[in-house]
Amino acid sequence: MKLEDLPIRDDLRGRTPYGAPQIDVPVRLNTNENPYGPSASLVTDLAEAVRHSAAGLNRYPDRDAVALRQDLAAYLGHDLTTEKVWAANGSNEVLQQILQAFGGHGRTAMGFEPSYSMHPIITSGSSTEWISGAREEDFGIDPDKAVAAIEEHRPDIVFLTSPNNPTGTALDPSVIARIVQAAPGMVVVDEAYFEFARTGTPSALVLLPDNPRLIVTRTMSKAFAMAGTRLGYLAADPAVIEALLLVRLPYHLSTLTQAAARVALAHQTELLGTVDLLRAERDATVEWLRGEGLTVADSDANFVLFGRFPDRHAVWQGMLERGVLIREVGPPEWLRVSIGTAKEMAAFRAALEGTL
Amino acid sequence: MKLEDLPIRDDLRGRTPYGAPQIDVPVRLNTNENPYGPSASLVTDLAEAVRHSAAGLNRYPDRDAVALRQDLAAYLGHDLTTEKVWAANGSNEVLQQILQAFGGHGRTAMGFEPSYSMHPIITSGSSTEWISGAREEDFGIDPDKAVAAIEEHRPDIVFLTSPNNPTGTALDPSVIARIVQAAPGMVVVDEAYFEFARTGTPSALVLLPDNPRLIVTRTMSKAFAMAGTRLGYLAADPAVIEALLLVRLPYHLSTLTQAAARVALAHQTELLGTVDLLRAERDATVEWLRGEGLTVADSDANFVLFGRFPDRHAVWQGMLERGVLIREVGPPEWLRVSIGTAKEMAAFRAALEGTL
Repeated sequence: MKLEDLPIRDDLRGRTPYGAPQIDVPVRLNTNENPYGPSASLVTDLAEAVRHSAAGLNRYPDRDAVALRQDLAAYLGHDLTTEKVWAANGSNEVLQQILQAFGGHGRTAMGFEPSYSMHPIITSGSSTEWISGAREEDFGIDPDKAVAAIEEHRPDIVFLTSPNNPTGTALDPSVIARIVQAAPGMVVVDEAYFEFARTGTPSALVLLPDNPRLIVTRTMSKAFAMAGTRLGYLAADPAVIEALLLVRLPYHLSTLTQAAARVALAHQTELLGTVDLLRAERDATVEWLRGEGLTVADSDANFVLFGRFPDRHAVWQGMLERGVLIREVGPPEWLRVSIGTAKEMAAFRAALEGTL
Repeated sequence: MKLEDLPIRDDLRGRTPYGAPQIDVPVRLNTNENPYGPSASLVTDLAEAVRHSAAGLNRYPDRDAVALRQDLAAYLGHDLTTEKVWAANGSNEVLQQILQAFGGHGRTAMGFEPSYSMHPIITSGSSTEWISGAREEDFGIDPDKAVAAIEEHRPDIVFLTSPNNPTGTALDPSVIARIVQAAPGMVVVDEAYFEFARTGTPSALVLLPDNPRLIVTRTMSKAFAMAGTRLGYLAADPAVIEALLLVRLPYHLSTLTQAAARVALAHQTELLGTVDLLRAERDATVEWLRGEGLTVADSDANFVLFGRFPDRHAVWQGMLERGVLIREVGPPEWLRVSIGTAKEMAAFRAALEGTL
């Protein structure tokens, strides 16, 4: 039996699975992972938490993950409480639940591209129609044009990514506020990379109290260095959480995931300590790339988009041959490098000089 | 903001979240959990596996969970290999991925009820239309009637549950084979409770080699006593797995889940050792209930459906007041009890005698 002989959904025909190549190379700077592994004390606490919760593994987990949501609310601050926070297996699942509740056949979702490529993929996976809006030359969003596009298309869901992946661009809350006001439905601000934003950049969380149709999503994969744990979360009006309870798969979040995420939150000072290192390394990387005469997007994230290369695949390949895996993603002629350790970034610079 | 003021999907309006009450009572016999917690040595191995894999938690998990799928294939036998096995967060997510690949708006899925209530819920969550077929008086499926219903409705997906939840009824592979032959699309046999079937009951896995549109799903929540780990899996033609790769959320299965499931598989002799105890307890429970003059469905699962009570809620409530939580589910006038330890079943019998 071949895939094309199976009765798959028509819109899946001819597609290939999403995902960056998982290649085993010395320096992996392609999926915006945090390069710093957990400390010995964090590993011990994780193992102990699992030992403690394992005794009850024959029982289903807390379906509503109340203790974890309480801890996440405390971390986020902004007067958030358990009933305003929700969690799932990675922000991918959080976004999918949002689309299942507020999207679906006959509804539309709009984003401003280039942006996170999973937004249109998860949108189409829920039979929602994707509408592609545009970012400016500098990868920012012009609020007047965005409002005009929203008024034209009347999307049921608007996605805003801030800081934006793969460009690194943060949005000012005043831009988000204007878009929320214009949007007829839900507005999702994907803040997966928020903790890496330059000092003084406000979170869209400040807008929540006045905007019950606003959802702010976060993840523990990046700043918390917990990509392997798969923990995404969101903050929103309690009514939004009630809506998500209608579509979430029962017991979606395992006992182990809930326990591990709570341990990571208890170690937040240690884990978020890597953020400052990565921000400094990022700013140095931007400066160095510009010094090399390359074009570089301003970045508030743990990655940098740079170019422009008429044959970017050749540059990507040249880097790979030198043991450095970066990402061929975003607009043509650009490449994205995740920020690693000082040593990894030295390897990146050497490999790029060797390649160019 | 109230839920009804949010722009949720129309078919969600008025719904309440799925799920049995999570009530803290001395004897919980309501969600078909395995009452036996892991041994001290299994707990130690789980904690050590987490300690080992935690060092890499800053990295994303293996997106395709290859090592785990290899272990699952070895457990299932039947000449299965990695490329014929797939895993996700509970069989709920496995089923959702099947519906995302083969269902969707304009397509239909059919089941024979009473059966697992998540099948229609996950079906509608993917905008697929649910068609309700009927089981016989004894909760079996008449193959002639099933084939006629399939030929009438031409469903894109057929769900068969064997042993069936909440009735406990196992299907003969000859019945499944006739349905697979008649079905124009995919056929999913949900074998969540297969390990509890009476000796000699064949798995639908025997039909896989000749039927590339057949999918057999399983879970580690029941026989493996790992409900808290959330690990569901399936066996099918490799082309079916390729189709699921198109819809699965990238990195859906955490490093911790993959590690914990592999530890449980390594301990399968210990874990499945509880199955014989539970089967014996189930058979004794069926006999006792019949001795009490009650009507009881034959059971090949770790639960028993019994009745008939004109006011089943009063019986459920009476049991709860005596510290025993059972499930008000299935056809009217019937109640379902999960099989617990010998001590828990003694409490069940005492509570039922006190209630009736």
